[in-house]
Amino acid sequence: MSDDAVGGTGDGNDDGATDDWPVEIAGVVESVVTTLGPNDRWNVAALGLHAGDPVTARTYGRTRTWRNFRERGGGVVQFTRDPVGFVDAALSIHEVDEPVLDSADAWVEVEVERVGTDQEGDTEIVTWKLGAVDSGVERRVVPTTNRGFSAVVEATVAASRLDVDGFDREELLERLAYFERVVETAGGERERVAFERIRDLVDAEW
Amino acid sequence: MSDDAVGGTGDGNDDGATDDWPVEIAGVVESVVTTLGPNDRWNVAALGLHAGDPVTARTYGRTRTWRNFRERGGGVVQFTRDPVGFVDAALSIHEVDEPVLDSADAWVEVEVERVGTDQEGDTEIVTWKLGAVDSGVERRVVPTTNRGFSAVVEATVAASRLDVDGFDREELLERLAYFERVVETAGGERERVAFERIRDLVDAEW
Repeated sequence: MSDDAVGGTGDGNDDGATDDWPVEIAGVVESVVTTLGPNDRWNVAALGLHAGDPVTARTYGRTRTWRNFRERGGGVVQFTRDPVGFVDAALSIHEVDEPVLDSADAWVEVEVERVGTDQEGDTEIVTWKLGAVDSGVERRVVPTTNRGFSAVVEATVAASRLDVDGFDREELLERLAYFERVVETAGGERERVAFERIRDLVDAEW
Repeated sequence: MSDDAVGGTGDGNDDGATDDWPVEIAGVVESVVTTLGPNDRWNVAALGLHAGDPVTARTYGRTRTWRNFRERGGGVVQFTRDPVGFVDAALSIHEVDEPVLDSADAWVEVEVERVGTDQEGDTEIVTWKLGAVDSGVERRVVPTTNRGFSAVVEATVAASRLDVDGFDREELLERLAYFERVVETAGGERERVAFERIRDLVDAEW
């Protein structure tokens, strides 16, 4: 990917030598990744970044991110605090014209390389190593903790497992009900909108 | 409280006219508050900040924060990303010599005033309005989302309800087991230490 794809969006490091991430990756950090599809639009998806040197990530099955990683060799990882954008990335097919989302606080252009493959039932899990080739920080803030935001993220995890073998559907639905209550108690307006979006996108009752 | 109590810890606004918070409060934001006790040490506790003008917070029963708010008329609210500090604040009696924790990304000296009282069983719930009288930002960063961190916070909520009437103990224990699994899957080293601390502090098996 060339600079112009992300040009003008931040204080990118243009010396071509960077392999640094603008954030610390500890444990698994939930990110959003855009990858360029065959239609030349950017697919937006959720991606968990696993700490390590190199940072790695997994794709589960023949997703758009898997296809685009394979065919384009990379994408743009980004960090966002917007729960609505996170839901769209995690649970819907969502495409945009530009690789960096307005809601991104920082982005990292990555090159990816397949480093492992596991099989879980019918699903092929591919592990990719991610190398940062360019990055930009849009804004730095004092982070705050909102249980409603976390509940939205957890609800997307539960929702995405509803039709996967090996998970107890009743337990997942109870969990969705719990996280909905947390959003009602502690969420702000964006978390409420995000949970409504989950209700729209998920074909289940709880 | 005078400036010297928090002096030298950041870029405080010393014009005496500020009523601004250094972060946006939407929904309920989980913070840590230090309040000065009768022993002249600072008690560290968890405090949920409810959005509004003014920002409000609740104390549940005759806690140290309740006592110190009443007797001192304020405290120092702070925002931290450290899960271990959050557990200590939420689940243990924890006292320190200085009002601002090293782990605080930002702090707000608040004046508090009781604005409401509710009764829930034997517990008196007091609502306080919080006015910012001084504040400082120690550092701004690109926020990241770690499910393990959120799981630690949710686990402290579940743990603190274990002996409260009206909550289903079995359900809370199942929730603790779930959040422990999330920490094992997605937490970093600090989240693992934090969950160990929860295990040490909570007298229950799950």
